[in-house]
Amino acid sequence: MRDVSIIGIGQTPVGEHWDTDLRSLGIEAVRAAMEDGGVKQVDALYVGSAYGATVSSQSQIGPLIADYAGLRGVEAFTIEAGDASGGAALRTGYLAVASGAVEMAVVLGVEKSTDTVGAERVFARSVSLDTDYELVHGATLPALAALLMRRYMFEYGVELSAFENFSINAHANGAKNPNAMYRNLLKPGGFARAPMIADPVTLFDGAPDADGAAAVILTSAERAADLVPQPIHIAASAAATDTLTLHDRADLLDFEAVRLSFDKAIAQAGITRDELDLFELHDAFTIISTLTLEAAGFAARGEGWRIAADQKIGLSADLPLSTFGGLKSRGNPVGATGIYQAVEATLQLRGVAGSNQVPEARVAMIQNMGGLGSTVITHILKS
Amino acid sequence: MRDVSIIGIGQTPVGEHWDTDLRSLGIEAVRAAMEDGGVKQVDALYVGSAYGATVSSQSQIGPLIADYAGLRGVEAFTIEAGDASGGAALRTGYLAVASGAVEMAVVLGVEKSTDTVGAERVFARSVSLDTDYELVHGATLPALAALLMRRYMFEYGVELSAFENFSINAHANGAKNPNAMYRNLLKPGGFARAPMIADPVTLFDGAPDADGAAAVILTSAERAADLVPQPIHIAASAAATDTLTLHDRADLLDFEAVRLSFDKAIAQAGITRDELDLFELHDAFTIISTLTLEAAGFAARGEGWRIAADQKIGLSADLPLSTFGGLKSRGNPVGATGIYQAVEATLQLRGVAGSNQVPEARVAMIQNMGGLGSTVITHILKS
Repeated sequence: MRDVSIIGIGQTPVGEHWDTDLRSLGIEAVRAAMEDGGVKQVDALYVGSAYGATVSSQSQIGPLIADYAGLRGVEAFTIEAGDASGGAALRTGYLAVASGAVEMAVVLGVEKSTDTVGAERVFARSVSLDTDYELVHGATLPALAALLMRRYMFEYGVELSAFENFSINAHANGAKNPNAMYRNLLKPGGFARAPMIADPVTLFDGAPDADGAAAVILTSAERAADLVPQPIHIAASAAATDTLTLHDRADLLDFEAVRLSFDKAIAQAGITRDELDLFELHDAFTIISTLTLEAAGFAARGEGWRIAADQKIGLSADLPLSTFGGLKSRGNPVGATGIYQAVEATLQLRGVAGSNQVPEARVAMIQNMGGLGSTVITHILKS
Repeated sequence: MRDVSIIGIGQTPVGEHWDTDLRSLGIEAVRAAMEDGGVKQVDALYVGSAYGATVSSQSQIGPLIADYAGLRGVEAFTIEAGDASGGAALRTGYLAVASGAVEMAVVLGVEKSTDTVGAERVFARSVSLDTDYELVHGATLPALAALLMRRYMFEYGVELSAFENFSINAHANGAKNPNAMYRNLLKPGGFARAPMIADPVTLFDGAPDADGAAAVILTSAERAADLVPQPIHIAASAAATDTLTLHDRADLLDFEAVRLSFDKAIAQAGITRDELDLFELHDAFTIISTLTLEAAGFAARGEGWRIAADQKIGLSADLPLSTFGGLKSRGNPVGATGIYQAVEATLQLRGVAGSNQVPEARVAMIQNMGGLGSTVITHILKS
């Protein structure tokens, strides 16, 4: 198996882009990544997208964007895994280059969440839930996240305020990221006054769905060394799943797929969790961040929230999280989110993250999740 | 790059399955393939599906079916490329096993085309067309196929009856396939009396969208030799794209992506086209079969229809096509079609195709197409 490196990155601002479409966002990110990597042509385009067919009524995004980005003819198709579509596309590109079948690939995450009537229903069916056993009964993703959060608070006797530093940290970092959707700062104590979305999930707990596109260029490590001064090595790529429905899990508060994919990634990279300099986790809800840290072994069960509450997640702290704002502040362009994570980790490992820089960042983990832990894709990047 | 083999196959009957759903079809095919291969567990599930989110309102089919098929926890995600979703999923599984990252994978194609209100609109937007430049103007896939066919008839001065042996052959083979959707025989001259769908495309020219699921188990050639008596070797895997829209093509009657992916596949397998013992092409319309044979170099331009008209495509003829009925008679369960092709080619190469057997079949090509040549995925299988 060949080693694989990232040699180019591109991203568009994240937000509600009423003035543009899926195609244009995709082209912009692909061209930016190719320019960044000094790459004129690639052999393949793998696209992570969750809402193409539903929100934009557009399938076969692969050949569509390949053509418009000047890559007509290349291998191209779409990968879907709900919110984890970007991570799954990155894994597909990794497998293609690692195998030796593909020399150079661009992996694009692109999503247009706005521009549809009845978006909430589209989101519900497109992303996370079991349609026959959850959606038809009126369940939504925030409602099920609320169920997990309420159970967590009951089991471990913690208050809503225990979670707030995840979001405060995300916004502190996102405020400095020109591509972030919400660049306002959140203040301690704000959770108590935040509008309730699905009790106990408040507006400050959940990440906003958004439009955006990001892309990375992958090639073999050998070739990368000849092409760019700072290739970023993909030291591990791992995927795992859990039940789609919460009611089929033996333990609601155990994100088994996080543990499985985290353990595989750590083993492949040959490192310990202490060696991670930053962790771009899938902070779609603060309860997800909490349960992720526990399943990945950063904290004992019932203690994940303390890592945030004890101020250990800032840019210069033990375990920097959401260094460019995460899903919460940068925004969650669904199928593109996993590629934004890869782009941001690459900026960190290149040492060009500016005021978002994690000091001496050498090893980064990025983790993209579909649903409430149903699909989890983990990559470890190294400078 | 490791060599990859097919060690298990499974399929459900193709048809309008009003009594079952996407999940159940998927489980049935996965379990059948695992039983056929004598496999108790796999490491990954790659799902080809085009209509999950639109027709069945279900995304994240990967973890859903993994769980219900007894594979909870494995890597799993969905691959979409319109009608070529199955072929693209097969390529993803091939890349995963070839890389060495995955030891054993099941590749599932599954589609539920029925069970929706306004299916025609869903099909139009889900499969083939550029929504902004084609769909919104009222174009449909049969209408655009008709445009190609009319142009072809004009350019080369051929009559509608020139194409009919593609369909007569498909139904002759499909009539003997218990999994085929339409097992009636078509008679010569029938095209002239067939109902018109989109002039000049008749009911006898186009393949029916359908429900169905098929699966194959992939592992390394080395391991396959230890596990089953007759592993089928994947000698080539290749993908290419063309513009999504017809109006962007310099030459309407040139399927460039067919040529690109065919040439790559032939080169990888190290064979000539004469060594192919059968060709499961994407016969969604007779004009597609015609243009495919020309782009792949089996016939000069304007002459592709002659291969069928001259009776060279039967089971014992020069170039057997659609040996189990193809899309036309077996039916086209969209994102599953590419995997049905793999299952059928495997039956041929194992020499267990019964009354559909191609004598001494050793090398088979399967080719799955999205839209009118927009995505083309080609595999070559060897016994």
